[in-house]
Amino acid sequence: MKHLTTTDIAQMEQRSRARLINSLSGFKSANLIGSQDDKGCTNLSIVSSVFHLGANPALMGMIIRPDGVPRDTLSNIKQTGSYTINHVSSDIYCKAHQTSARYDANVSEFGEVGLTEEYVEGVIAPFVQESQLKFSLEVREITQLMVNNTIMVIGEIKHIIVDELGMNPDGYIDIEALDTVTISGLDSYHQTKRLARLSYAKPGKELDKLP
Amino acid sequence: MKHLTTTDIAQMEQRSRARLINSLSGFKSANLIGSQDDKGCTNLSIVSSVFHLGANPALMGMIIRPDGVPRDTLSNIKQTGSYTINHVSSDIYCKAHQTSARYDANVSEFGEVGLTEEYVEGVIAPFVQESQLKFSLEVREITQLMVNNTIMVIGEIKHIIVDELGMNPDGYIDIEALDTVTISGLDSYHQTKRLARLSYAKPGKELDKLP
Repeated sequence: MKHLTTTDIAQMEQRSRARLINSLSGFKSANLIGSQDDKGCTNLSIVSSVFHLGANPALMGMIIRPDGVPRDTLSNIKQTGSYTINHVSSDIYCKAHQTSARYDANVSEFGEVGLTEEYVEGVIAPFVQESQLKFSLEVREITQLMVNNTIMVIGEIKHIIVDELGMNPDGYIDIEALDTVTISGLDSYHQTKRLARLSYAKPGKELDKLP
Repeated sequence: MKHLTTTDIAQMEQRSRARLINSLSGFKSANLIGSQDDKGCTNLSIVSSVFHLGANPALMGMIIRPDGVPRDTLSNIKQTGSYTINHVSSDIYCKAHQTSARYDANVSEFGEVGLTEEYVEGVIAPFVQESQLKFSLEVREITQLMVNNTIMVIGEIKHIIVDELGMNPDGYIDIEALDTVTISGLDSYHQTKRLARLSYAKPGKELDKLP
């Protein structure tokens, strides 16, 4: 086993350190954030930082770097209060990754990478038509984290659109059946293979594998 | 495609809604949090809410529910300022899941589920010996999120211990080669199969698949 200390980390070349530290959290979600500004210019950006915050109310968080590429996304969310989160499948992962290029603010990534805008009545932000699981949010809170000036955006889920193929009677959505991919590090995309769903754990009780 | 609205979500039975909403963020990281209180009683709890916050300084966030199972973890982190994050592999995912049972505060999950404490000089919190990628943190910030009273814990990475098999010359750690698993929903565990690592995206430039 290799043992790296704070000094080793500090002395690494900047890009290598970014690749290393971005690998540590484990597998990450792969989502496209859809938004538009108040003039109607749409934006689409891949993020790997979406995380679950709570089910009731249904809240989702994401982290945006103040100097990072999805800065148009943040600006649009501030303008309209609306955004969508769209799962990335293996069919579209290269197009999704391409949205991380630094396009000008007045250029829509939808057109540039070849993905299709889709609209739902009452939602300003565009969905990704090609996505098999997607939902819209209304922003609830935008906070700058003092430790390193990153921005945390928290939204409440309003509309969920999901391929019925993934819906399980107990509420679980089988995102593997929907071919949602996962990200490791800054640039690696992965499909998944289920080991099992496990039963609710109790002290002194054997776990069951759910059917 | 199925379309669910706020009303549909509100009317769902509570556990079904939790399963549904927990499926939406996409694949999640699978980590064991190691800690101990100031009397030396150790604790281990699985979390799927660890997320990357920044590489320099190397910062990691995680979300803890105030009434959730890892409340001993939060109490220990407040007491000692120290915790470890340990990747879960397919060898130990059932033991890792079992740590989510509600054991008493004076019972160590290490012994109950059959995982081994490992210590590094200068770090109070125990690592998981069986884990192939693990790191220690010193707490930097504990914040209660006003939207739903969940707790965000932010720590700075101090020691990284990683199987050299996973280390790539460019800094990336191949967590798939280390057999790190990923979680979907509340209870589903998955191995991964790489599609590709993709090159840094630039406008008007074709993506390359990295070797």
